[in-house]
Amino acid sequence: MGVISLLTDFGDQDAFVGIMKGVIWKIAPQVQIADLTHWIEPQNVLRGALILGQAYRYFPEGSVHVVVVDPGVGTQRRAVAAKIGHFYFVAPDNGLLTLPIEWAEKAGDVIHAVELNNPRFWLPEVSRTFHGRDIFAPCAAHLANGTPLDELGSRLESRELLRIDIPKPRRTPTGWQAQVLMADVFGNLISNLTTEDVGEERIRKVVISGASIERFARTFGEAPAGSLITMFDSSGYLSVCVVNGNAQKQLNVRAGDPMEVITE
Amino acid sequence: MGVISLLTDFGDQDAFVGIMKGVIWKIAPQVQIADLTHWIEPQNVLRGALILGQAYRYFPEGSVHVVVVDPGVGTQRRAVAAKIGHFYFVAPDNGLLTLPIEWAEKAGDVIHAVELNNPRFWLPEVSRTFHGRDIFAPCAAHLANGTPLDELGSRLESRELLRIDIPKPRRTPTGWQAQVLMADVFGNLISNLTTEDVGEERIRKVVISGASIERFARTFGEAPAGSLITMFDSSGYLSVCVVNGNAQKQLNVRAGDPMEVITE
Amino acid sequence: MGVISLLTDFGDQDAFVGIMKGVIWKIAPQVQIADLTHWIEPQNVLRGALILGQAYRYFPEGSVHVVVVDPGVGTQRRAVAAKIGHFYFVAPDNGLLTLPIEWAEKAGDVIHAVELNNPRFWLPEVSRTFHGRDIFAPCAAHLANGTPLDELGSRLESRELLRIDIPKPRRTPTGWQAQVLMADVFGNLISNLTTEDVGEERIRKVVISGASIERFARTFGEAPAGSLITMFDSSGYLSVCVVNGNAQKQLNVRAGDPMEVITE
Repeated sequence: MGVISLLTDFGDQDAFVGIMKGVIWKIAPQVQIADLTHWIEPQNVLRGALILGQAYRYFPEGSVHVVVVDPGVGTQRRAVAAKIGHFYFVAPDNGLLTLPIEWAEKAGDVIHAVELNNPRFWLPEVSRTFHGRDIFAPCAAHLANGTPLDELGSRLESRELLRIDIPKPRRTPTGWQAQVLMADVFGNLISNLTTEDVGEERIRKVVISGASIERFARTFGEAPAGSLITMFDSSGYLSVCVVNGNAQKQLNVRAGDPMEVITE
Repeated sequence: MGVISLLTDFGDQDAFVGIMKGVIWKIAPQVQIADLTHWIEPQNVLRGALILGQAYRYFPEGSVHVVVVDPGVGTQRRAVAAKIGHFYFVAPDNGLLTLPIEWAEKAGDVIHAVELNNPRFWLPEVSRTFHGRDIFAPCAAHLANGTPLDELGSRLESRELLRIDIPKPRRTPTGWQAQVLMADVFGNLISNLTTEDVGEERIRKVVISGASIERFARTFGEAPAGSLITMFDSSGYLSVCVVNGNAQKQLNVRAGDPMEVITE
Repeated sequence: MGVISLLTDFGDQDAFVGIMKGVIWKIAPQVQIADLTHWIEPQNVLRGALILGQAYRYFPEGSVHVVVVDPGVGTQRRAVAAKIGHFYFVAPDNGLLTLPIEWAEKAGDVIHAVELNNPRFWLPEVSRTFHGRDIFAPCAAHLANGTPLDELGSRLESRELLRIDIPKPRRTPTGWQAQVLMADVFGNLISNLTTEDVGEERIRKVVISGASIERFARTFGEAPAGSLITMFDSSGYLSVCVVNGNAQKQLNVRAGDPMEVITE
């Protein structure tokens, strides 16, 4: 069987994503295909990397994650595929795979990467602007079919893969200087401070965009509708939420904005 | 094979829906997954219930419908699964299943419900905010795999399942007092008055938002572009439409607004 | 296995597309289903035809493309199915299939069409407004199952199929008078002038909405961010783009607007 996931900045107004599925099923007719999201803003490699980090481990081992946020398409940026831990990834080499790589290194998992430079696994004609269709989709389908990674191109060392700087929280005398990484569809503000960073510390207060939030909750049901709360989200990131409301709109905050976290 | 449908308020900007698919295919690799819609407004249980009511009977018998509009996630609200007539449902116990339950009772179909309280069928770690991923998706996948409903948790009586009040049309001396339940993507206004309610009566006039509509049509082609018409929609609900236009925008009407229907 | 693609104007706020998938899987449980897009504007048959033209050839041979942009639903417009070259199509007979038909005629491919008038392959009850669910989806599923085209209804000659006028570029003393067909999600403006029209000519300048663009690029990486460029897109159409920006917004252009192309 096999599963392929797709994460792009193609939106859903055009047929770009559907075309990639056609290409995949021509090569691997049995594979299941899941859309992660196609609403990464063009060029927003950081958000693509974060969403991939949230999602990839929930898939069956051996799944192939295709990530196409590719402002450099048609330039000299490399196209790569990698096996990282139990999962395959296919993407432009622009930092989209930063989180799986970092986490694999921490866990001691093997990383095995290649440059996608064997045209035998591409579509016969390769455009200069739609490698999702012409290179990434067919290479992913071949991986799902069991083609060994090394046939797709030349071996790369994992340290040759480009990484982006994903902002890390900074220690302060009273706790942490964190920042907002992104908002989700509910307007919950997701920061870069994790349960792992915080460990046994207790969150006493979060200051963000002039608001001072003292209510730390474990669930939305613990506070009345309209309350500003902080909680660890389902991926373990400290987030700021309005119960039955939208924190992003209420606080007028955007990705990159600072968040001071007082702990004890 | 088996089919699972997903109906949520998760939108498509995040990977939440894709993650649920990953979880499902890890457990039930062959299952087909259809998205109903992920654009239920947060907390709008009524609209979730209505859309489910429109859709579920068109699926193969034995399909599993997963509905996650779940403002009470993490609180004491129950998570439930039910076999209602020929279909399975997995949802928070907040009224989302009201229509299948009511219709099954009317038809004399068997309802068999359980509380999802057997952690053996959940993900190993359960968050407090994303039961779609941690409880509903894996339980649905196990059902699609043929796990008997009773293994997923303790039996509930169908009268224990929470129901919401879906507004019913009211008889008046001249016809019916109906109300708008929702608008569809074309701006067609769907009311709560059905072909079944109306029976042999003839629709003479509909008054809504100051407009008086006397043209009752069977198809859009019966009236010139721009005309306000009423018709029974493809689910049997009386609706108000503008031919090649958008009645919701033109009349500035919203869910809950009244609609007077004169019949003879 | 078999693949069905869906291209509609149903959006994603309602369950219409999901319902079509339920209907399909009830008849053809193994078929793979890809969404092309569901964001064709209501009544915009031209855009539906163009997106179909971009996409259909990337699918496995024998795939069934279902196209439902159907302002005439419920009127006397025909519902049709056709085998055009290696692909099947199911659609209202309103011009949506113009490009596959034109290209097949040019290539000498066989076109084999029928009117979908055999109710044995429809749902038992057919509404007057949702033929996507009641006629097109079940007929497509039967085709995917191997039902011969001729069983679905009476044979039509391919010249009986309705075609729309897809605007063609016009020769001028200095090059071509082209026009914008549509914009994609990135705001790239796609014209009706193709690599095939242009042949060996060199693009010297494009004048559109008061802007004069002299930079013809092969990739986005050839010009600095913010530059207006022209290039042939991944389907071979001349397009106007802003590197890392949005040409549609910057030039305030819409479908149908003229574009003068100076060649040499």
